[in-house]
Order: sequence, then structure tokens, then C-alpha cells
Amino acid sequence: MSEFDLINRYFKSQVSQRADVVLGIGDDCALLQAPVGKLLAMTTDTMVAGVHFPVNTAAKDIGYKLMAVNLSDLAAMGAEPGWALLAITLPAGDENWIQAFMHGFAELAATHGVQLVGGDTTSGPLSMSLQLTGFVKPDLVMRRNQARPGDKIYVSGTLGDAALGLKCVAGKLASSINLPYCVSRLTRPTPRIELGRELARFSRCAIDISDGLVADLGHIADASQCAAKVQLDALPLSEELQQYYGHKIDWSVVAASGDDYELCFTVPPEYEFVLKNIADKTQTRLTCIGEIQAGEGVHCFDQSGAEVILDRGGYNHFS
Amino acid sequence: MSEFDLINRYFKSQVSQRADVVLGIGDDCALLQAPVGKLLAMTTDTMVAGVHFPVNTAAKDIGYKLMAVNLSDLAAMGAEPGWALLAITLPAGDENWIQAFMHGFAELAATHGVQLVGGDTTSGPLSMSLQLTGFVKPDLVMRRNQARPGDKIYVSGTLGDAALGLKCVAGKLASSINLPYCVSRLTRPTPRIELGRELARFSRCAIDISDGLVADLGHIADASQCAAKVQLDALPLSEELQQYYGHKIDWSVVAASGDDYELCFTVPPEYEFVLKNIADKTQTRLTCIGEIQAGEGVHCFDQSGAEVILDRGGYNHFS
Repeated sequence: MSEFDLINRYFKSQVSQRADVVLGIGDDCALLQAPVGKLLAMTTDTMVAGVHFPVNTAAKDIGYKLMAVNLSDLAAMGAEPGWALLAITLPAGDENWIQAFMHGFAELAATHGVQLVGGDTTSGPLSMSLQLTGFVKPDLVMRRNQARPGDKIYVSGTLGDAALGLKCVAGKLASSINLPYCVSRLTRPTPRIELGRELARFSRCAIDISDGLVADLGHIADASQCAAKVQLDALPLSEELQQYYGHKIDWSVVAASGDDYELCFTVPPEYEFVLKNIADKTQTRLTCIGEIQAGEGVHCFDQSGAEVILDRGGYNHFS
Repeated sequence: MSEFDLINRYFKSQVSQRADVVLGIGDDCALLQAPVGKLLAMTTDTMVAGVHFPVNTAAKDIGYKLMAVNLSDLAAMGAEPGWALLAITLPAGDENWIQAFMHGFAELAATHGVQLVGGDTTSGPLSMSLQLTGFVKPDLVMRRNQARPGDKIYVSGTLGDAALGLKCVAGKLASSINLPYCVSRLTRPTPRIELGRELARFSRCAIDISDGLVADLGHIADASQCAAKVQLDALPLSEELQQYYGHKIDWSVVAASGDDYELCFTVPPEYEFVLKNIADKTQTRLTCIGEIQAGEGVHCFDQSGAEVILDRGGYNHFS
């Protein structure tokens, strides 16, 4: 089966059809009609086998996660998803693998109204880059540099599940330990698209947590020229993670490991009251974890008020 | 040096600043202002070390070529280049390599007014995907499916140089043979942006020749449901290629090998007269190589009128 047959068979047919796509897959470029009165929000994220996912990860989960991590970037800006271009490099044209990959990819794309409009298929070591374009009103954009002293810091969902799930998958926990929820959070993160769009009406500042809370909140602190004070015992934890750790939570897993794909955002105190409605409407847990202050850096404190030094690095590819 | 430092140092500073870029590199998404009255033209192309370029290719040439092959897709639609997102995977954060890569990349980007607005840097086997967005008026788009019987088939520039240059670089020619022009055509192809925009006023149908003339003209024939008749001795050849082959031209190199990045386009005979002006204005050689006819497929004929069967495959990653 040739590259073109593969593309025709799996990539053209399996995804949403949007009215603003004038020309989709099949020519030198896709042709798109941009919406009036909105900005385009563009992002790209790459996943490499053995770096971003274990080599034995199921193809359908890889496809799902590639879409999820890119959608998460749109969510952090408050943008509505639109178009995707997929550049995929495969060791061989394995039809079953591509079919499963596209199944996971298309499942999440359809949920969020994303149409695959173009791409490139090449041979080589397994990796893939997705480029997503979304739309956002200029006055409803959330940015990293808009936090102000006095703002409350919130996160969505729970933290650390994916990092614990990765330990489980990688065989770093006792073999009797089974953590299905944490593993599912690793393989199928939930991009907070609806939440991002609701938050954008009240929050000026958000980021998605892909490299760990301390690292990503650090980007907010740096860009906004503020300090972020975090109360570790306020961090939202899943039941499964709490049961695993008991009373000895590993804060470096919860606050300084990657792959959460939750939103971290700030709100002025006078808007905190609206968050309950947003949490209800989007069925998303929202938790205040600290406060923006004058100063610099991210500072984490335990229940006793002592500062806890966590590696801020998150996942750094070249350090 | 961390991933973020690398990005800050080389990717943020070295490229054009466009007025339609509301927010460039440094947040979860770039924010762009789409032009009114034009469609967006989007493309992505990947290059993998050892597949799309020899592993010992100079970093500055890889950067240049990545930009060139993506610009070539915009040229084929008649689009004006705008924004780029770069997803790059590197075995290690080699500062010199990245600096040289970005030098070649930025050089060509600046020529065509392209601004790098975002991307992703990851570790892994060397490969890179570029995503480009351009702009085109809806009534000035060239597409593959718009060729009609009676149209004349043209190509820009000369064909086969890059394929011969690759043989030279790969050590497949006698060691005494030196083909600097052909090698330069391999490493630094010329995207025909200005030509594409001029042609779009008179041609409805174009493609860029990346997989070889026969393969790419075949896409026009298939999409337009026509046949393409090509006169091999009409194909434009560089002096260096002609000197190398003498009277025994290898037509499979000229017409069925990749990496030309010239435009192949069709024009109704009544518009042929404008092509001389366009050739002069864009300083590009334009050569009639055949005709669109009823039927299907690409058919190549030699001087005697006999049909010559060339492998249509071009470069197929999985066959």
C-alpha cells in the first residue's frame, strides 16, 4: 500500500467536515476561510516514540494523546479548535497501526469539531507533529504575562496522576500495584477546551500544565514579573493517587512532573465567585492553590509554613 | 543550555517581524490576524535525516531547504507566504548546529517575508516539520484538478539537477566528477513564490515538482481526469546536466526523480503569449513540455514519437 493510498484511506475520510474548509487534504495546500472578528491561535506539538510515550503504547492512545496535547494549548488561550495538519513519520506503512492511530486521533478531533485539512507522511523513526489552528476573540485571550499580585492561582482537575501512571507503566512500582485511573490520565489526558473558553471571560492569564506545575507556573511568574506562592497541601489529588501515597505524598510527582494537561490560571479575587458556576457547567474541579505576589519565582510551602524546594525543571529535553 | 534558552536565543530573534502577528513565540499559541478577503493556504512538510537529506548535510542547508520545500507548496497554489511554525527534533542541544540551521532557515524566510511564530523543540532522532500559512485571493488559486484538454503544459527552471546532484553527493558518480550547480540545486532549491503569484492570474492549475515530473504531473492528470502528453526532448536541462550526460540523457533522472521544486502548470493556449512577460519579470525560464489531452495518465514520447515508459513512482515512502 503506497503512501498516497494510506492517506486517502485513513486520513481523508475519518474526520469532521467544517464549513470553513474550502479545500481539504489532497492538494499542495489546504485552503481555509478565517472567521471574521477573531484572531487565529496556532500551536504545534511533537511526540517522539520513547521520549513522549513508551514505545509499546497502543497506537490509538498515541493518536488520541497527540490531538489532546495540542488541544490543551488552545484551551490555555481560551480558543475554539478548528483545523489540524498532521506530519507523521513511520518506520513502515503498517496499515493496522495507522488505522488504530487515526481512530484515537479522529475520536477526539470529532469531539472538538476539528477537521484534519492536510499533512505529510514520511518514513523514518516513529514521531509525529500536529499543528492546530483555533479561533479566539481579541478581548477574550488568556496569556502568560497577565498575572497580577493579589490574583488567586487555580488549577483544574487533579495533578500528578499521569506522572504516577508513567511510573506504573514503566515498571517502577511494585508489580502488585495496579493504577488504572492514573494510567488512563497518562494515555488519555483531557484537554480543557470548554473550561478555557468559559474562563477567558474572567481570567486574563492561563497556561496548560505539560511540564509540571512548578515549571509551567514558573512561566507565568517569569512572563508576568511576579512571584507565585503555592500551598502544597491545597493541590488537588485524585483518590487513586492519595490511596497510593497515603500520608507521604511525593510532591515532586504531584507538582514537578509532566503530562497533567490541566489548566493553571489566575483570577482577581473579585471574580472568584463565578468559578463555582464554571466548575458546575464544565463539570471540572477547580481548586485554589495559592496566590500571585510581588517578587519572582515559584515558592511552595507545606502545612507548617516551611518552604519546600522542588525541582522546577519539569521535563527539559536538553538539560 | 536548556530548551527554552535555545528557543529564546535563536528562534525568537532571527526572523521577520510582521504587522499581522499579534503574539509570536513564547506562549501556548501564537495569535495571528488573518487578512480580509483572502483564503489561508496551509501546508506542512517533514524532513528526516537519512531519508530527505544525507546525514552529513550542512545544518544551514537543512534549514534553508526545510523553508524552501514548504514555500514551494505555497508557490504551487499562487499564495503569498506569511507565518511559520517549526517542530524540530534533535539528538542533542548542539548550539552550533542550531545556530547554523536557523541561519539558513531565517535567510530564506526573510527573503519571502515569513515570520516564525511558534514551534516545539524535542529530543530524538533528527527530523523537522515546518508548517507554513500563506494567503491567496479565492479567485486566484491554482489547483491540481483544473487542467483541461487542450491546455499546454509548462515547467519552470530546469529538471533533474537535484537528482543528479544527489548521485554526486552520494558518491554514485566517478570520483573525478564535480557538479557544483547540480549539488546546489539539491541543497538550496528555489521556491517559485513570485512566479506562482504571477501565474495565478492566467493559470488555474499547478503543482510543485517534489517527487519527479511524471509522478507530480500524474497528480494533475488524475485530479483533472485528463491525460498528460510530454515530449521528453522538450524538457529544460541545465548546462551542467547536459554536459554530464552528453547525448545520452537519463530521462528517469530528469523526469522521474525528486527534489526539483520547480512548478509544473497548465495554461490554455490563448494565454501562452503572456508567459514571456512573466518569465522576464520573474527571471525564470518557462518551457512548454507537452499538452493535456482526453484520457488518463502521463505519457512521455521521445524525438521519434515512440512512447517511453518511465517509472511514475517518484519517491514513495512505503512501496
